[in-house]
Formats: sequence, C-alpha cells, structure tokens
Amino acid sequence: MDVGLIGDVVLQNLRVQTPSLSLRVRLYLALRQAILDGGIRPGTRLPPSRRLAQELALGRNTVLKAYDQLMIEGYLEGRVGDGTYVCETLALGSVGSARGGKPAPAERPAELLSRRGTELSRLTGSSRVQHGAFMPGIPDVEHFPFQVWRRLLGKYIQPRQSHLLQYAVGGYGPLRAALAEYLRSSRMVSCDPRQILIFNGTHQALDLCARMLCDTGDRVWMEEPGYWGVRNVLRAAGLETVPIPLDDKGIAPTPDDWLDPPKLVFVSPSSQYPTGTVLALERRLELLEQARRHKAWIIEDDYDNELRYHGNPVASMFGLANAGRVIYLGTFSKVMFPGLRIAYLVVPPQLVDGFVVGNTELYREGRLTDQAALAEFIAEGHFSTHIKRMRGIYRERRDTLQDALEGRLGGAISRSGGHAGIHLLYHFNAAVDDARIAEQTLARGVVLRPLSVYYQRPELARPGINLGYASVPVPRIGPAVEVLTRVVEGQLKGG
Amino acid sequence: MDVGLIGDVVLQNLRVQTPSLSLRVRLYLALRQAILDGGIRPGTRLPPSRRLAQELALGRNTVLKAYDQLMIEGYLEGRVGDGTYVCETLALGSVGSARGGKPAPAERPAELLSRRGTELSRLTGSSRVQHGAFMPGIPDVEHFPFQVWRRLLGKYIQPRQSHLLQYAVGGYGPLRAALAEYLRSSRMVSCDPRQILIFNGTHQALDLCARMLCDTGDRVWMEEPGYWGVRNVLRAAGLETVPIPLDDKGIAPTPDDWLDPPKLVFVSPSSQYPTGTVLALERRLELLEQARRHKAWIIEDDYDNELRYHGNPVASMFGLANAGRVIYLGTFSKVMFPGLRIAYLVVPPQLVDGFVVGNTELYREGRLTDQAALAEFIAEGHFSTHIKRMRGIYRERRDTLQDALEGRLGGAISRSGGHAGIHLLYHFNAAVDDARIAEQTLARGVVLRPLSVYYQRPELARPGINLGYASVPVPRIGPAVEVLTRVVEGQLKGG
Repeated sequence: MDVGLIGDVVLQNLRVQTPSLSLRVRLYLALRQAILDGGIRPGTRLPPSRRLAQELALGRNTVLKAYDQLMIEGYLEGRVGDGTYVCETLALGSVGSARGGKPAPAERPAELLSRRGTELSRLTGSSRVQHGAFMPGIPDVEHFPFQVWRRLLGKYIQPRQSHLLQYAVGGYGPLRAALAEYLRSSRMVSCDPRQILIFNGTHQALDLCARMLCDTGDRVWMEEPGYWGVRNVLRAAGLETVPIPLDDKGIAPTPDDWLDPPKLVFVSPSSQYPTGTVLALERRLELLEQARRHKAWIIEDDYDNELRYHGNPVASMFGLANAGRVIYLGTFSKVMFPGLRIAYLVVPPQLVDGFVVGNTELYREGRLTDQAALAEFIAEGHFSTHIKRMRGIYRERRDTLQDALEGRLGGAISRSGGHAGIHLLYHFNAAVDDARIAEQTLARGVVLRPLSVYYQRPELARPGINLGYASVPVPRIGPAVEVLTRVVEGQLKGG
Repeated sequence: MDVGLIGDVVLQNLRVQTPSLSLRVRLYLALRQAILDGGIRPGTRLPPSRRLAQELALGRNTVLKAYDQLMIEGYLEGRVGDGTYVCETLALGSVGSARGGKPAPAERPAELLSRRGTELSRLTGSSRVQHGAFMPGIPDVEHFPFQVWRRLLGKYIQPRQSHLLQYAVGGYGPLRAALAEYLRSSRMVSCDPRQILIFNGTHQALDLCARMLCDTGDRVWMEEPGYWGVRNVLRAAGLETVPIPLDDKGIAPTPDDWLDPPKLVFVSPSSQYPTGTVLALERRLELLEQARRHKAWIIEDDYDNELRYHGNPVASMFGLANAGRVIYLGTFSKVMFPGLRIAYLVVPPQLVDGFVVGNTELYREGRLTDQAALAEFIAEGHFSTHIKRMRGIYRERRDTLQDALEGRLGGAISRSGGHAGIHLLYHFNAAVDDARIAEQTLARGVVLRPLSVYYQRPELARPGINLGYASVPVPRIGPAVEVLTRVVEGQLKGG
C-alpha cells in the first residue's frame, strides 16, 4: 500500500473519532481501527513517520507516539533497518468484523443470562417508582438531622482517623458496643458486641446467612405473605423457598410440615411484614423447640420494632433462645435513611468466627467512618431523639390515612396490623384484582403495592393493598386517598 | 405455690439481671425466666400485684407493668374474677432447659455450617493483619485529601439534597457520566454512562456477574496464579474455577482447553495480579474470538492501571470488543481508599437492563451522597491530582524496596512485573517454602504474602513473595528488608 492509500484509510477513520480526545489518541485509534478491520492488512509496511505526518498534515511527534503505542500493544513491529510493519501474526477474526460496523445479531436475554440471572432480571419487586403516596418501605428523610450527621461524619474524616479509611474486619468496635447496649435495653437481646456483624444492608446480611448455613437446594421456610426481597435473595443463593401460610397467631406450620423440616426459617415475629401480625408466644416456643430438634436456624427479622404506635413491644426471640439457634437481623434503613446501607446480624457465639471470616472473604468490609459516625449518633442520644420525633410525625400521617381511607371505604376493606412500622395493610372484603387496582392508581399518580406480590402462590392470595405513608406529608394524603377510593369503587362495581 | 416461695424464686432471678436495666425490665426478665425454666410452673396462680410488691419490696406499679408485659406476650393469662395465672398451654421444651443454665453440647463448625459455609469459614485469603510492611493491597491513606473529601460530602448531606438519602437504582447519574468521560480519555473505553453500574466493591460486582451470567456448576477460567478473592466469590456463587496457567504473554489456554469452553473468563490484562504480566495482543484477540464463538463472557479487571510507573498504559480489551462480550471492572479502593467501597462495571449494552434489575433486587442500592461526592471529586480534578501525587510517593517507595531487596538478595530472586500497582512480586530462583518464609517474617513483624496462596494448585506453584510497599514510609523499608533478608537467607541455607 502506498502512503496515499494508507493516508486515506486513516483520514477516514480519524473523522469518526470523538473530537475531545487528543490528536495522538485519535490517530492511535484510527490506525488501530484500520488494522483491526483489515483496511491496513497484516504484513503491510507503514510509511515512515515523517511521510505519514506530511500526508496527514500532522506533527511528526504525533505520528511517532501513535506508532510507539501500537508497537507496545503488539499491532506493529519494527524490523531492524527496514521500517515498521503491521504484525503478520495478528489473527483478527471477529474483532475485525465487529469493528467493521456490522453489529452482532441480537441475542435474547435468555441466551445472554444464566437461568438464575434470567429469573433475577424478571423480578419487579422493587418498583421503579420509589417515592410519592403511597410507596411502601420509604421513610421520610426531610426531617433527618442533616447538620448533626454532617458534623459526626466530618469528625471521623480526618488525618488522625486515617485508619478508618482502610479495610475492616467484623465492623467498628464502638458501633457494635453501642448496638449491644441499645439491643439489651430496648429489645431484650443480650449479647457480646463481638456477636454483632455489620453489613451493607439486610440483603447482604441475609445472603451471608444463606451461604454460611445452607447449600444449594436446601429448604427455607418463609411467611406467606412475606417480603419479596428476602425471597429473591434466598433464591439467588440457590435455596428453595417454601411458603408457610400465616394465621392470626403468625406463621403456622402444620405437624406435616415438620416431617420435612427446613434448614432455615425466616420470620418477622414482632410485626410480620406486611400483615403486622405478632407471633404468638406458643408459636415462638414451638419454633425454638423444633429448630433445636431439627438443627434448623431461625432468622428473626426485627423490622419495624422501633416505630411502634401503641401497645408495648414484644421481647425478641433471640433473647428467649439463650445461645440457641436464632439469628437476629436489624437495619438502619427505616429509622436513619435507606441510602445509609447499614444493617446488622446478632449471631449465636458458636457462629461468630465462621461468619466473620465468611463476611470478610465474600464482601470485604470497609466504611468505618460511616460506622463511627453512627456509633456516636447513637451514643450521643441523637438516634433515640430522631426516632421519637419521627414516631410523632409518622403517627399523624398514619392516623390521617387510616381515618380518610376507612371513612371512605370502611365497609369494603379490613385493616391488618398497623400498630408499628411505616405502612398500613388493608384486605378487601370482596374478591377484586389488587394488581389491577395498583395499575390503575399508578396511572393516576398514586403508587401502592398489591398484596398479591407478597405471595409465592398468588393464586391463594387474599386481595389487599399495602400503603406506605411515611414519606407523604399530611396535606397530600387526602387527595391521594380520593384517587384510590375512586379506583377501588370502580373495581368493586365491576369496572 | 405461696407468695413467699414465688418471691424467693423471683428474687434469685432478679440478682442475675444486668443492673443497668430498669427495675420493671429486670422484674419482667426475672419472672419470665422463672416461667421458662419451670421455677414457676404452667397453671400456677400468681399472687396479686400488691402482695408480690410487698414481698419483693418494690412499687406496685413496677409489678403491674411486668405482669402487663407478660400478659401481652402470652406468658400469663387473666381469669375473670380469679386473678393471674401462668398459661397452662405453654410448651416449654428446650427453651426452658436452655434457660436453666445447661449449655447445649458444642457442635463442631461442620455441623453448624453448610458445606459452602464451612469452605468459606476456612479461607485465609484476607489476612487478619491488614497493615505494616509489606502487606499487599493496602494503599497509603495518610496522604488522602481529607479536607476536600469532607467538604464534598458535606455539600451533599443537606436538606435540599435529601433525595440522595433514599434507595437508588443504577447508581448516581453524574458519577456514571464522570466515569464514562474518565474511561474514554484514559482507558480507551467508549461507553454510554447507562452502561456503568456502581457497586459496594469489586467482590459485589463479581458476585452479580457470576449470578447473572452463570448457573451452579458452570466453569470459570482464572489466571493461575491469580487473586484469591475472585476465586472465593466465584466459588461461593457455585461456580467451578478452572486455573489456566500463565506464560510470559499472560493467560495461555491450550487448544484442548477450548474443547471444554468456560462460561466466563476472568483476566487482568493490563497488569496481571500478582505477576504484573501484560496480556499480549495476540492473546487478547484470540480470547475475544473464542469468547464470541463459544458465547463465553470475559471479565476484564483493570486493576492497577491508574498507578503505572513506566511504559505507556495498554488500551483496554473492552475498547477492542465493540458491543462484544467483555465486561470491564474497575475500583476506587486503591486510588481513593479501601473503606470507600465503590467499584463499577461497564457492561455491554445488551446486558444493561438485566444487570440493573438484578443489582437492585439482590443488593438494594443506596449511598448516593458518597457517589455524588466522588463524582465531584473527579470532575473538579482532585482525582487526577491525587493519583499523580500518590504515583510519585509510591514510585519512591517502590524504588527503595526494589533497590534494598535486590541489593541484598539479587542472585536469589527474580522480579516479575512491577511496572504498575502497589506491590512487587519476586520469584525465588531456588526451591524454598514460601509459606514458611511468610510465617517466619510474620513472627518478626513483617507481613507478606507467599505466592503459593495465589495458586489453586499450590503443588505447581513457583515459590515467591508478594510485597506491598504502598503504605510503608521510606525509612521503614530498609529495616523490614533486613528482617526479610535474614529469614530468606536462613531458608536458603536450609534453615
């Protein structure tokens, strides 16, 4: 190829490069593309840098640097006394043709992803709409004490605290100590701080439990209905999730169920999500006894316990099962803010060592500055002040929603639970399609979750709606209830 | 039981309660314990609150509140006109005996944990000692621009930025845009910001790839030797990791290997960890072609590319494989700080939707304030300033270590790679036990990693040592090299 022909090929490729890149980089990319797509073939002798520079009206240095880079990367080779060649040995294959502009034929997701990946990619648990009336699971963050949090974080982002920027093992000591004290005084959980492990959210904590305690194909019992997020995490860890229906005393496994015992039972005893049912003492004792007998583990999700509006809180199962088979799960997502991504497990002493190693190896830990700020936030009393304040705000929003909705739809719906948390769950007294109601309200700007999505066997689901009120200021509740009421009434009339 | 006997049992239990708890809580716990361990049996009628209060010399209100709580939780029941009874129906079983102080017989870890949990709990990849000369993988954090970082974080922890405290989907837009620009200009990675997904560290990013792209039992090829962390994550996701030996051109699969193609290939082409080998162009092209042919995926770990001491950086494989089967993996752990826990994937367009859903469902995302601060840190130029500065500091430490060690042990060792990153790898020219050398230096206060731990088949390992110098100030390098030299010389003499 003569210099003119090579110059043409390169110029053509130069035109399509991103203009903001340096000339050297653009020339490198243009030459590389010409080699990869066969415009300049293996074995071709390139013109000397000075000649190509003239041809392209570029500085010689620019060409030299592009040649150098291509030499380093193996596209070109220098032959002593004989100039620069495109390597003979380049096996271009598909790369060349891909660069030639012909896109590969589109593959369908099922061809691209694994079976479990395909299943994961089809999940729709976490809605794309994450705000507004009545998105469940979203706390109010407008009233968060930003200034205090900024001050505490700033205190630990300091040269003399530089060790907090490194990797961590097992979490920040003072946070674990503050948590141990908090759990002891408010949740009847008595533990050594070393039993507390810090995670980036409850999903990660559950994932560790699933992998440390269960192998692929092991069975996990879950409350039906229950939190879809847990189901997804456990399934993605290869476990079979078995739905165990609830009655008014909570999860109600039959003697037959116990003939085929699970490896793990996931429960939310203090306030079942989403029904708000409190697990009765006899059920708790039975679960503990059967878990001991069958060497099963119980994960106690103590969701919502901090935000209780009436009635005394019920003591934790962990506190009942001294050194037993209960793992306690807590999170700061609802009482601090979701984006914080700090959750924790309290594990029995015999699991501590294994879990610490597994946690470190699987996830590598860090984020000690956040943990230090949180420890001080708790120790200084900001945590309990903030919870108390939010409880008042949430209670007002909750009461407003309850009064408005029950005032309008009283005969058609029945409230379930509602003594704690940041949502209200209503069953419909007649047969309606709750998913259709959710679609119709969404089209009118009101988000809610149909109860059927919380079921593994939606065909057995009792229709209902889950309404999150925590992030909805009082004046916005009435209008949203009006929208919801009209949709529900339309459905009840067979619309 | 008469009131005196009940009073005695309760008093005895009261004495062992944590004194810092309120009297009401201690009395509740003492009564509960008495019921659970059979000190007060089901069906027992309790004395009226006034009588028990007298007996225990407590306020009547304290007793009433403890009774109330036990009633709520189902331990006690009121019979109309007939006082308060311990529930007849309580099936105490094991809980009672566990409370009675007899600890359950200790189970061995293998009985407690799953098979994969047991494997995880035995891993020792991430050392318990995470600092000092010559711990690999630990950057210097003393020189981090704390003030700038504090200012940027503080800017986003504000009421008007409260939306950053909520859950996230797909990561913070401006960070993904800043990364796209950075990757384009410095790594020849051309992508749309939507192709970039943000993770809590590389382990989580790898975990998502493993689950979205592979099913249990699928094969992954890894460089041998290679980073143990990847191996652990992929194995914990149920994959079979197949070690493919390196030669001086990088990972070197044979034609026979390709008869049994993998689902995923994990490579670090720009600077293989830990050997520093650069993957040759012909190998890159061959990998890309075979991946296309066998519908395999390539994960390109671009570890260390920012910290390069001589030679031009080699362009990424992602940039070569337009819309192909390469997934690019990057992290801020070494160039910012490990505890930050922010890493990212750049995925081909056809994987974006599935990965975003999978990521959200599996891990729930948040931490937008950190991501916003990082985006601005990059956009304001602090990132490149910091890297330039650290490159100078690291180069001096690297050169000091290299000169000292090669001056003392020159004939016994051979350096591998070392053009980039924060570690130096040396092979031994004679047969020695590198694990034993690591043990002996550790006993003398010097941490290092034997090369054998990076092998899946340690029996085929060439002995060597991996030395991290990044967090070791220059004056400390000489003394640590002396310790190391004496240990190695002792070993070479057959000690």
